[in-house]
Amino acid sequence: MTTLGDSFHVYDTTLRDGAQGEGITYSVSDKLAVARLLDGLGVGFIEGGWPGALPKDTEFFARAARGDLTLKNAQLVAFGSTRKAGVKVQDDKQVRALLDSGAPVVTLVAKSDRRHIERALRTDVAENCAMVRDTVRFLVAEGRRVFLDAEHFFDGFAFDSDTSLRTLESAVEGGADVVVLCDTNGGQLPLGLAETVADVVARTGFRVGIHCQDDTSCAVANTIAAVQAGATHVQCTANGYGERAGNADLFAVVGNLVTKLGLDVLPRESLAELTRVSHALAEIANIAPDSHQAYVGSSAFAHKAGLHASAIKVDPELYNHIDPGAVGNDMRVLVTEMAGRASLELKGREFGIDLTRRPDTLTTVVRKVKELEAGGWSFEAADASLELLLKDELSELDAPPFTLESYRVVLDHTQDGSIVSEATVKVHVAGERVIATAEGNGPVHALDAALRKALLPHLSWLDSVQLNDYKVRILTDQHGTDAVTRVLVESTDGEREWTTVGVHGNIVEASWLALCDALVHKATRVGE
Amino acid sequence: MTTLGDSFHVYDTTLRDGAQGEGITYSVSDKLAVARLLDGLGVGFIEGGWPGALPKDTEFFARAARGDLTLKNAQLVAFGSTRKAGVKVQDDKQVRALLDSGAPVVTLVAKSDRRHIERALRTDVAENCAMVRDTVRFLVAEGRRVFLDAEHFFDGFAFDSDTSLRTLESAVEGGADVVVLCDTNGGQLPLGLAETVADVVARTGFRVGIHCQDDTSCAVANTIAAVQAGATHVQCTANGYGERAGNADLFAVVGNLVTKLGLDVLPRESLAELTRVSHALAEIANIAPDSHQAYVGSSAFAHKAGLHASAIKVDPELYNHIDPGAVGNDMRVLVTEMAGRASLELKGREFGIDLTRRPDTLTTVVRKVKELEAGGWSFEAADASLELLLKDELSELDAPPFTLESYRVVLDHTQDGSIVSEATVKVHVAGERVIATAEGNGPVHALDAALRKALLPHLSWLDSVQLNDYKVRILTDQHGTDAVTRVLVESTDGEREWTTVGVHGNIVEASWLALCDALVHKATRVGE
Repeated sequence: MTTLGDSFHVYDTTLRDGAQGEGITYSVSDKLAVARLLDGLGVGFIEGGWPGALPKDTEFFARAARGDLTLKNAQLVAFGSTRKAGVKVQDDKQVRALLDSGAPVVTLVAKSDRRHIERALRTDVAENCAMVRDTVRFLVAEGRRVFLDAEHFFDGFAFDSDTSLRTLESAVEGGADVVVLCDTNGGQLPLGLAETVADVVARTGFRVGIHCQDDTSCAVANTIAAVQAGATHVQCTANGYGERAGNADLFAVVGNLVTKLGLDVLPRESLAELTRVSHALAEIANIAPDSHQAYVGSSAFAHKAGLHASAIKVDPELYNHIDPGAVGNDMRVLVTEMAGRASLELKGREFGIDLTRRPDTLTTVVRKVKELEAGGWSFEAADASLELLLKDELSELDAPPFTLESYRVVLDHTQDGSIVSEATVKVHVAGERVIATAEGNGPVHALDAALRKALLPHLSWLDSVQLNDYKVRILTDQHGTDAVTRVLVESTDGEREWTTVGVHGNIVEASWLALCDALVHKATRVGE
Repeated sequence: MTTLGDSFHVYDTTLRDGAQGEGITYSVSDKLAVARLLDGLGVGFIEGGWPGALPKDTEFFARAARGDLTLKNAQLVAFGSTRKAGVKVQDDKQVRALLDSGAPVVTLVAKSDRRHIERALRTDVAENCAMVRDTVRFLVAEGRRVFLDAEHFFDGFAFDSDTSLRTLESAVEGGADVVVLCDTNGGQLPLGLAETVADVVARTGFRVGIHCQDDTSCAVANTIAAVQAGATHVQCTANGYGERAGNADLFAVVGNLVTKLGLDVLPRESLAELTRVSHALAEIANIAPDSHQAYVGSSAFAHKAGLHASAIKVDPELYNHIDPGAVGNDMRVLVTEMAGRASLELKGREFGIDLTRRPDTLTTVVRKVKELEAGGWSFEAADASLELLLKDELSELDAPPFTLESYRVVLDHTQDGSIVSEATVKVHVAGERVIATAEGNGPVHALDAALRKALLPHLSWLDSVQLNDYKVRILTDQHGTDAVTRVLVESTDGEREWTTVGVHGNIVEASWLALCDALVHKATRVGE
């Protein structure tokens, strides 16, 4: 519970509206994992889906009711439509499914734009109002708390404000205690939207919520402007996932509400979890995190400019809008051709290497990094490879734990349709020449397996090292399959994670380079 | 020239501030290509870089001056600092470099936050003002038009408004004709920022510009709010590229100004070019376009929800905030497990296939698509593969132009360090069994080369087919290199482009599937 209690709602709809995003498909266990993370963060409401309309959502609520989901902070919300036109509410199967879900809170979606009522629902305003009132009343009588999502509210209000307000009134008459103004098509801008919200609050006195889509790239701004105009309930999705351009990003909205408006909308200790939770939710959605995302992106506090990098050495707080640590993020200095010496010096400091008194080394490393980057390498995301490069230049590296003589990978798609990948490596380790062969799902997997098989008897620490993530980027798309490939490998030993990079025209060789760096980097840490 | 002429400036800084974005590195010819695209779009000003500070930027201006860049709409702008503290302006090398660049317009950056003046510049307010005034005056006397970027303006104004205003006054005294208020650390929100802009306009009467960073996810909203408060000059970058969370996105800002505020800030015919230019600029930056970007993203008008998809058949304009064609984008209906029959029916219509009277086929295809998507396939971006699947189900496909017997790929990293990829395919084509072997840069390239070698003597149309783009996505990052791989291949025959998809645990087999679909799809079009 936050200090604001029920007086301000952070309402998450990642599992319902967020799941409309292109490329997002949650399984039921994904949905449970998402709900647990959001609850841990301390949001007040988690909209779990549309029971009765989507089988997976029905199952999600059933499993939650069976005890597969225990919430500490949040209340679970079922989303659904009002009764259909001309049908009695108690006979409406979809409404029944909302009750059956067992969710203590129900959010009903209703049309609040006369054109939608007439052209999409093909009914009239009076019946639309009755549908809203009846359904809310029915659910409230069954002990549910009910919110109303007034779809297309802003467009409808501009076209015919009377109809839009009547929709809200019908909901409140039925017993709804929040009416949520939805910018469903996402065409609003903050100043105009804030005026409408203030107008609605003044004219109705209702408790107002806000739900914004990002079609003008203003969803976060619109949400904040609505709060400043009187809304006390914000609907968001993790990382802004959602249909078309997406929804208002939970993390930016919360970041702004807490750090800019001073509203404690999450439990105090949760703010520092924003970055971690954002990345975990991206993982579950299987969408690469947006590195430029406000507050939580890996670049959100990354400084590249040589100009600023020198000033940052003097006074970091002058160059960040907040302390990155407050949201669990870090300031990073990027090593690129634009950054130059000052950035690399700072980067060295991160690795515990003092380059201040080694101006010649610094010059050499800057030149080497520039050359490599010109060939497609990138150290921005591969600190471990950069550290190896720096230490190599300073002659601080021990002899590598192994050396390669050769490898061969054979891929067979046989006549019976089976596919076999087999790799053989010949390496020198601990004074011995070792040959090992292994199969794998693909060429890189086979190569990794063969290398491990060869090394493990000699390097026992290898056992703890695992691949966390493997990313492939084709660098120029001018040449189709003969482009240069950059591979990033994230490894872990259960305690630390580190990322290495490999670049080559051949994807297998690029992967090999990144895999080798990962092991060499681990070797530098063994015995520390 | 727009109808607004000089009274409203669309000022692009993709080549300077945008180049600070993590992962962006422009070559000089990239920079020229970017400038040509922006000029074609009709922006008023193109900030080309910082001559004298970055060698590539110096060269860019030199080549532009030599005639490598002919601008129809825009004026080229050189960016740079004021003279250093305690140095005469005519002796300042960096200021000299701005003149030498030959750019008709110069934007000077100056500190307007007292803390930055004292702690980063280590000088006092009076000297800072003199630096601004002297430098502007010097450049104006040399015939340049000068704008002032007042760095950290909003933070500075909140801390000590007098100092911030004195910076602006010094610039105008020197002859600057726009003072640009910069939210350099990006911490502003629209309502507060609009108040400050209105306050500055009211107190000074100066012509005011706006430059926003996206650290609160409000850069676009802040830019629009500033215009509503009186700013008549907006600084943006293509696709919001820029340091940390990025800058205000040119395309969203222009889209909003034109379609929401009715300001004709670009030549009338340019609006429909927004999507094309955005994607071309992403290509040059070598950054995958953001599919969820407002106005220009491939998902910006993509509808997934089964609910909405049925309504869209009735009345598309109810579900888009603008006509997608107005910005050169398209409405798309996504085929996913959530979409169901209505979406697939609409999709069939796009391919010229009428599924309305084939309900059984529709049921089978929906089920098949769901099964494949559960296994990692995605047809959202691979229309050509979906079309093949649909036609196959309708038995509308001819026999495939070739069939595979087997392939083998061998990769050797030899003892001398050379790397060889060789592929052999055995295929049946035009009644013959053909065996062909070829080498390539990597396994997929070798396989593609061998397949072409085998087929070309029998399928002459193959000659025109080229790979445009090849994308690899590792689907679950839980298992490192044994994850499932999805490959998207974009092909072209010089007239059309089409995308196919392949999914497999083995990256080479996934690529093979996508390559084969690409050729089979082309075969369905031969002779049309």
